[in-house]
Amino acid sequence: MIRWGLIGASTIAHEWVIGAIRASGGEIVSVMSTNVERGAKYAADHGIPHSVNTLDALLNGQPIDAVYISTTNELHKDQVLASAKAGKHILCEKPLATSLADAKVMVDACKAANVVFATNHHLRNAATHTAMRDAVAAGKIGKPLAAKVFHAVYLPPHLQGWRLDRPDAGGGVILDITVHDTDTLRYVLNDDPVEAIASTQQSGLAKAGLADAVMGVIRFKSGLIAMFHDGFTTKYSETGFEVHGTEGSLVGRNVMSQRPVGVVNLRNADGETELKLDHRNLYETGIAKFHSAIAGDGKPAASGEDGLWSLAAGLAVAKAAETGTAQPIDPGL
Amino acid sequence: MIRWGLIGASTIAHEWVIGAIRASGGEIVSVMSTNVERGAKYAADHGIPHSVNTLDALLNGQPIDAVYISTTNELHKDQVLASAKAGKHILCEKPLATSLADAKVMVDACKAANVVFATNHHLRNAATHTAMRDAVAAGKIGKPLAAKVFHAVYLPPHLQGWRLDRPDAGGGVILDITVHDTDTLRYVLNDDPVEAIASTQQSGLAKAGLADAVMGVIRFKSGLIAMFHDGFTTKYSETGFEVHGTEGSLVGRNVMSQRPVGVVNLRNADGETELKLDHRNLYETGIAKFHSAIAGDGKPAASGEDGLWSLAAGLAVAKAAETGTAQPIDPGL
Repeated sequence: MIRWGLIGASTIAHEWVIGAIRASGGEIVSVMSTNVERGAKYAADHGIPHSVNTLDALLNGQPIDAVYISTTNELHKDQVLASAKAGKHILCEKPLATSLADAKVMVDACKAANVVFATNHHLRNAATHTAMRDAVAAGKIGKPLAAKVFHAVYLPPHLQGWRLDRPDAGGGVILDITVHDTDTLRYVLNDDPVEAIASTQQSGLAKAGLADAVMGVIRFKSGLIAMFHDGFTTKYSETGFEVHGTEGSLVGRNVMSQRPVGVVNLRNADGETELKLDHRNLYETGIAKFHSAIAGDGKPAASGEDGLWSLAAGLAVAKAAETGTAQPIDPGL
Repeated sequence: MIRWGLIGASTIAHEWVIGAIRASGGEIVSVMSTNVERGAKYAADHGIPHSVNTLDALLNGQPIDAVYISTTNELHKDQVLASAKAGKHILCEKPLATSLADAKVMVDACKAANVVFATNHHLRNAATHTAMRDAVAAGKIGKPLAAKVFHAVYLPPHLQGWRLDRPDAGGGVILDITVHDTDTLRYVLNDDPVEAIASTQQSGLAKAGLADAVMGVIRFKSGLIAMFHDGFTTKYSETGFEVHGTEGSLVGRNVMSQRPVGVVNLRNADGETELKLDHRNLYETGIAKFHSAIAGDGKPAASGEDGLWSLAAGLAVAKAAETGTAQPIDPGL
């Protein structure tokens, strides 16, 4: 039984992660919120025995094995370093940090402390993306040449907070969504990105210079080019993920989702077939892998290094849009 | 009855334009090919009374009112200038030329000669794109924020010629396909492009440094951003055209086609509806408008200025890809 502490009384823990931990046999011992009242109410609402308002109290109060960090992004670094020092295994929300240097320090600290460090890139746990990864690896579409990621959504009103007006917290669409795209591309293609170009948009929803939509192209080591569209502003756009190869195409519809949904079609010389998918809760799949990794069995779905890669890509996309020039993607690994 | 001369014994005239001229009440008097044998056979095969092997013979032999120019792109300029000088109305294939300066000279010459000058951007004549244009103009999707153009195909073997190995003729995917995308975006959005970024790919099909696929993003005056994927290399990718606005989305599937096909769905607060389309031969629609323009009734579907715009966008996309920097789009009008 893995005992968890939550760092951050967050919406994502409420909506997905608390349930996933419990469904995977974990126990949630305590939640930390710097706001005492909010922490107490959150604990009561979710049947969590303890709430605390300092990191120290969380790490050194009740015994815990692992922490889930879902505070705003500028806080991740210190929380990861303290948790690693205390010997806790760490599942951290993306982006790992707001700078590559910070993220690198976090990865190194977890390695030195010999704790499992995972990035919560949930889309690796989707049946849709795993089926596309398997089909690509099996050569069903020949050599992959082009990919497309459609991940423009409408940011739900209850999430229209720091994402729209806090550059210091890693707000804006790129660090919120583009990092997921690049991680999913790496996972499905089994390839790494090398260069990005991008154009951002500020339609008025986001403030303080933050982008509320972005389009761009990422070039991969294999020579594949991938285009993406991420946004907070379009209410009726569908998500999707496609890979087109020399001998076939994979077309995923409604697949950039937290929910276990979506359809994937394979088109090649054999015709068009809908892939059979065993849809399961993405977060439960991720937590189960994390628990196994703690037990020494395998790796988490997305490692700290994977989080470094997605952050490096996100920061390159942001800089490319800002400067109007193609930017290299290098996680410094 | 408009009497036509064909400049170039081309595949596109064979497949589409000869039939469209005749269906629209035009008569094809003569065809010019520098290869005498090819010209004679082409004329015989298509029931064209005369074939000639010089431009002078075409323009000053049998009486003609209009010419259709579908030679390789580096030849367009001199052929347009001579035709305008001879007082012929001109329908010219895209791209108008291989440089903006040449295209500008062509547009100016036709204006000075008071002849109709049209660019053969057939997609403006599609029921699909016209329906999307009307829906956007009617406010069905609110303010347009984002567009996507999917125009990656597999170049048919019978067209795998100069497009793949002649940079001097305007070969490569950008001047062949991206110019259509940008013209269609201008038509549907009733907006003009201002800046482009792009990444090209050379998968091995194209030679001599030419790109056989490209992805990029074009920013429009309104602030809308549009992404595109054009290619010669993917056998199973579907074409598409989408516009996403603040209050709705238009999704066109299989709409970047020479054939009168495709489906357009509108999604907004009223739900999802398939737009009713009156599919008609695109080239016939274009020729009919051209004939009317000659008669003083309206304008051609795509003017010379429209061709300048699409060429300016194509050249900006090519330069953006080559330099890795965002490029302004300015037709110099």
